[in-house]
Amino acid sequence: MQIAEPLQIIIDELSKLPSIGKRTAQRLALHLLKSDEAEVKALAKAIIDLKEKIRFCEICGNISVEPRCNICDNPKRDQSLICVVEEASDIIAIEKTNEYNGLYHVLGGVLSPLSGKGVESLQIKGLLKRLEGGSVSEIILALNPDTEGEATTLYLAKLLKEYSVKVTRIARGLPIGGDLEFADPATVGRAVLSRINLL
Amino acid sequence: MQIAEPLQIIIDELSKLPSIGKRTAQRLALHLLKSDEAEVKALAKAIIDLKEKIRFCEICGNISVEPRCNICDNPKRDQSLICVVEEASDIIAIEKTNEYNGLYHVLGGVLSPLSGKGVESLQIKGLLKRLEGGSVSEIILALNPDTEGEATTLYLAKLLKEYSVKVTRIARGLPIGGDLEFADPATVGRAVLSRINLL
Repeated sequence: MQIAEPLQIIIDELSKLPSIGKRTAQRLALHLLKSDEAEVKALAKAIIDLKEKIRFCEICGNISVEPRCNICDNPKRDQSLICVVEEASDIIAIEKTNEYNGLYHVLGGVLSPLSGKGVESLQIKGLLKRLEGGSVSEIILALNPDTEGEATTLYLAKLLKEYSVKVTRIARGLPIGGDLEFADPATVGRAVLSRINLL
Repeated sequence: MQIAEPLQIIIDELSKLPSIGKRTAQRLALHLLKSDEAEVKALAKAIIDLKEKIRFCEICGNISVEPRCNICDNPKRDQSLICVVEEASDIIAIEKTNEYNGLYHVLGGVLSPLSGKGVESLQIKGLLKRLEGGSVSEIILALNPDTEGEATTLYLAKLLKEYSVKVTRIARGLPIGGDLEFADPATVGRAVLSRINLL
């Protein structure tokens, strides 16, 4: 059966999105077809606006509507702390915790020789430039705890040795609510090595 | 943290879609943000085109670009068979089997007193009108085998008794690849009752 062309096009477009397969795309498309026209147009407009209105903060690379994001622009944030993350989405994850009140710096990825991502593709120069004023006292490396994140963390730590700034990394250990019995050995091993004093 | 407004809007819009929660919506939105502008615009255009170009076939209610769908319009299809389905998406499911070469009729739902869907909300008049010419010899009822589908099937069968037309329903039984041991009693019971002659 030939599916009506506009329907086939939207199914194809939707299935390009991550975690959406042909069947989900078809269900979504048929849902849109049954929805109110106003609702469907609102979705289309939101998609276009997203690309047209959103830019990246000229200081930290965070998602922003203005040239500077609302974190860099907020004088109440601790200007002496910079948390280095891979992607802007990681900022959302850290902000949700309400545990951090410093600034951020988005690297835009991690070192990954296999996929051709080298030092020059990351926003490292911008980070080093932010250290020049001398107002930053600590850099927190918050990259994902996988092989590439580890390699990038070590690379940055080495690079930052020459600057008079404290360099830390976020803790690796058992996740809250996790179970020692079922955790993988690498995580348990790291949790033991990174033990902290209680008394 | 205040997420940039255009991003928050698209997350809200996406999470209105079925089977897409807040987290998936956020992942999709961030994916769109990183995608090529051309790709994102193609998606937005496909969504708008879907609503503007797609209509419903004036004969059977199938999804169509023209006033008549490509099934009703195809002289090679068996004009004496009408398969009655709940939604246009069911037509796609049946067409995929390549086992049926007749026409369709979309009811637009099933009788559901609890959600206020009565006889008048279904496309039953249109179906009866199609029987007037006398060229239809068989009506196949292919509604979902749930309580409401069953009730609607029985209602339609009773209604069609007055017409000189054969009325059948699609078989209910064990699904292909299914396992007798793990099938629910209602399905196994129906499979036994609906047994067919082999010799």
